[in-house]
Formats: sequence, C-alpha cells, structure tokens
Amino acid sequence: MIVAVGLSPALDRTLLVDHLRPGSIHRPREVLSLAGGKGLNVARAAHTLGSDVAAVALLGGETGAVVRRMLEREGITAAIADSAAETRVCTSVVSDDGEHTEFYEVAPPLGAGEWAQVEQLVEVELARRPGWLTLSGSMPAGAPSDALARLIHLAHGAGARAAVDTHGPALRAALDERPDVVKVNVHEAAAVLELDSVHPRDAAAAMHDLRAHAWLTVVTAGGDGAYAVGPDGARHVGVADPGRYPVGSGDSFLAGLVVGLLEGGDVDAALALAAGAAGANAAAPGAAVFDAERARARSGRVTVDR
Amino acid sequence: MIVAVGLSPALDRTLLVDHLRPGSIHRPREVLSLAGGKGLNVARAAHTLGSDVAAVALLGGETGAVVRRMLEREGITAAIADSAAETRVCTSVVSDDGEHTEFYEVAPPLGAGEWAQVEQLVEVELARRPGWLTLSGSMPAGAPSDALARLIHLAHGAGARAAVDTHGPALRAALDERPDVVKVNVHEAAAVLELDSVHPRDAAAAMHDLRAHAWLTVVTAGGDGAYAVGPDGARHVGVADPGRYPVGSGDSFLAGLVVGLLEGGDVDAALALAAGAAGANAAAPGAAVFDAERARARSGRVTVDR
Repeated sequence: MIVAVGLSPALDRTLLVDHLRPGSIHRPREVLSLAGGKGLNVARAAHTLGSDVAAVALLGGETGAVVRRMLEREGITAAIADSAAETRVCTSVVSDDGEHTEFYEVAPPLGAGEWAQVEQLVEVELARRPGWLTLSGSMPAGAPSDALARLIHLAHGAGARAAVDTHGPALRAALDERPDVVKVNVHEAAAVLELDSVHPRDAAAAMHDLRAHAWLTVVTAGGDGAYAVGPDGARHVGVADPGRYPVGSGDSFLAGLVVGLLEGGDVDAALALAAGAAGANAAAPGAAVFDAERARARSGRVTVDR
Repeated sequence: MIVAVGLSPALDRTLLVDHLRPGSIHRPREVLSLAGGKGLNVARAAHTLGSDVAAVALLGGETGAVVRRMLEREGITAAIADSAAETRVCTSVVSDDGEHTEFYEVAPPLGAGEWAQVEQLVEVELARRPGWLTLSGSMPAGAPSDALARLIHLAHGAGARAAVDTHGPALRAALDERPDVVKVNVHEAAAVLELDSVHPRDAAAAMHDLRAHAWLTVVTAGGDGAYAVGPDGARHVGVADPGRYPVGSGDSFLAGLVVGLLEGGDVDAALALAAGAAGANAAAPGAAVFDAERARARSGRVTVDR
C-alpha cells in the first residue's frame, strides 16, 4: 500500500531516432507516450511490481487530461488535484547508440490553494492505504518551503513511512522531518552536503549522519551501483548491466525498495529488488516500464555487499 | 472563401532552447503549441489575413482532440473527420542561433472509410465556400492514389479553384487534374521533374510546361525568393529578409497567394502578399503565426520582376 506523490507530473514522450543531427529533420521511427515525472514513474513501477498504489498529482489542462486517462488505462489508481495550469511535456530523443537528449519543460507554478488540495488528497489516501508515502521530483514554484516536511508529518501521523527522492532546498527541508528513506543520486547528495564532488559511499554515510535523520539513506551512482547506509550499517549494491535506457531507473529503484520493504523482506532483499527493477527498466525504452518477472529475476543476481 | 485541407495534420510543439547539445538535458525556456501540419498552417495564415476559411482534416485520439480545440480557440472554422488513429505530434527545437532541429512523426495510415469522410466534408464545405481549395502536405498511407485528383475535380465541379502544395507521387497524380496553382519548393520540383538538382527558375518553367497543366506554378527557393510561371509569363519574387523562423513560411506563402487572388488583385499583387506573409511568418517563432498588418506592410516592399 503505497501513496506515490508526483510533485511535478508530466506527459513523457520518447522519440526513437537513428541519430540526432542538430539542424536536421528527423522522422522518429517510434514514439512512446507515458504518464511521467518522477512521482508517477514510481507509481507505475510499484504497480508493475504488484503493489496497491495510489498516485497523487496535480494535473491541469489538456495535457493533464491526457495524463489522467493514461493512468486510468494503466490501471493505476489516481487521486488528482486540478491545476489551473497546463501540465508540462517532457521529450526524450533516444538514438540507436543509446544517446539520450532530454527536453524537460518547467512545471507550472502552483495556483492559489493548489498545494492544499494535494495535502488533502495525500491525507485521504494515507488513511486508505497506510504503508508508504513516496515523494519524488522537483518542487513546483509556489509550493510552501515546508511542503514535503508537512507531507512526511502526515504520513507518520497516519502510521505510514515516508520515502523522499528530491534535491536542493526541498530535500534539505524534508530531512528535518526525518523521512524513513532518502534516495538521491550522487550529484544531488553532493549538492545537499555542499561539496563539489563526493564518492557515493561517503555521500551516503555523510547524508545518513546529517542531523541523524533518515532510517535508510541510499545514494545511487549509475553504473557504479548504489551505496546504502541503514541502522545496521553500510552496503554497496552492485549493478550487473547498466542498460541503455536509464531514464526512470532511479524511480524504479525507489519503487522496488519500498515494495521490497512492504513485502517484509530485510533491507538487503529490498535493495536487491530495487536494483533489479532499475536494471529491468534500463533494458528497454520508456521510463519505469519493465516486466515484473524480469525485475524479480534480476534482483536474484544483484550483489549486496557489507 | 477558402477550404484548406490538412492531409497530415499534427500537433506542433516548438521548444526554444539556448543551444542544442546532443546527449544533454535541456530546459526549454518557452514552448509554443499549435494546430499544425501544412494544411492547418495554411488555414491559420489565411484566417490571419482575414479570409473566410474552413479547415478540413482527419483528427483522432487525444492529440486530435487537442488540435480540434486549438482550432476552435483560434476561431478557425473546422470540419473534422474522425480518425481511429492518434494524431501525430511534430516537435521543433529552435536554438538561439536560429538552428532548427525537427522531429516529424509519421502521420498514421488511414482507416477504412476515412478518406471518403474527408471527400464528403470537402464537398460540403466547397458548396458553402466556393472560392479556393488548398491541398497541402504529405498524403497519409492508405489514401487512394488519385485522392488529390478527386478533390481537385470536386473543386472544379463546385466552381472553385484548387491550389496544391505536396510532393512525390501525390503531386504527380494531382497534376493530371490540372490544379490552378501548384506551389512546391525547389527540391520537390526537382524530384517531380526527375532531376538531381535544378535552378528554381528552370524548375518553375519546366513544371509549368509539364503536361501544360497548372495555371500558375510557383517554385520557392528559401532565401533566393520564388520563381513563378503563369499564363502571362515568368517572374521572380524577391525576399528582403529571410528571417530566422522559416518553419511555416511556405504555408504562409500559399495562403497569401490564394488570399491575394481572392481579393481580386493581379498575379503580381498576389505573389507580393504571398512573400509578405512568408516573411512576416519567418520573423517570429510558430508556424504560420504572424501579424496580418506586418504581412501586408512587407508585401509592399516585395519585388516582383518579370
């Protein structure tokens, strides 16, 4: 039972081309359209892994209506707050050699009362689905600075746990409310630690100590796997094959981690499912689109070393 | 009174970025969304120039519904046939130095009976709006090979004139039905003449002689202006400033030409309005988006030389 909040939802469009040539006309041979943004990716990945998920997001305009219908068609339960602004579109151009060129439109700023709607929906869904709350993505302009802290507080009040995957000031503010899981990439970790660069292992340890807050801190480092620090120490999660389509792998990782913990496995098993889902995602185009059986099979081959 | 047929309509999205860097993440600073494809561009440009226009197009799915509502909001009368397939999206990435990188999705193939719907709508609209029929863009897969010839035949039967801007076999087939105006670019002209390359002046003359069909043949050549051959001889249409946003200039040209002829001006005046509209279009982003007064002011500065 997971409530996955999409802070900056999007319509994601992936265009497959042979090669990207600036200044030229391309005729994409295939186009994938999906409900996207990190939060909705987490919802899709957790749904794929068999969890009971509710996606909460603010959607608006014609693009918002399209995203809403896409979630319906995928069978993902969604609690949607209405935004006055048109939902953004994110476009990925993927060439045959695996090069990804991304165009991320900025999420529209929040209108009056819109954040309050999101909070209300989260509260309702948490009452229905105590378990985990996931908070992923960038904070849209106009959100209160303690927005994530308030949602984490709601989760804890409802007896749920909270996982956060964001960056910058929103991450720093979220840490104050002691989220149970923090998952960031190494660049986001360096930024919150105010370092120019840092080894992901050291970043995970430093973030875990940071105000001694999170229960489990995970720092992902692409092909180098992930470093996790929990109550019983640190581990490295190995990645067998990074895959050619990494967009959405971080979100699949977070979904796998939370689903693994919900299934009652230990932290190692949850990290293995996380890495299995991330790897399965990267094997084919489409963010957080993968086969659940493949993800579970891959998780059996993930190395988790203390 | 113009019936503008969009053979391959699209939702056009233009992303403005500082510079396109393959393999990187971009955050477009502005996004323009428009009803597009060449036929709908012609409809918009003619509407902007003050003509009574009906756009006829086959639209489907959620993207089709978005395009339909965009036409409504622009105040463009539209007669829409329902397609079973999702309308395509065309994405243009425009960088600050004026570089255009285009991603044109393929128009979906026609479903059973869909072309017949288009023909019916054209017939109804021509009865309401005798004047001009414009046929622009690529033919979708599944259209009858004599599709354009049949529409031109309908126009002539209704006492209207027909203008064609297409390419390849569809253009060749259309020429058999003696369209009144043929407008192509120099590459399309070379292809129909089965030449590797050709000067646009020679292309216009050769195309005009080709089976002695069109009343006015125009071959556009970007910054080199356009070459036209009509019943009273050949002329060159000069372009003062090619502009940084040429996408949609060909469609604005065709709209200006037809509007100019409808307004009762001579061929020279119509060609000047065509070039004025094309130039105004190229001054700002957005295909066939321009200011009518600017187009008419520019047309006064266009040179038409015999």
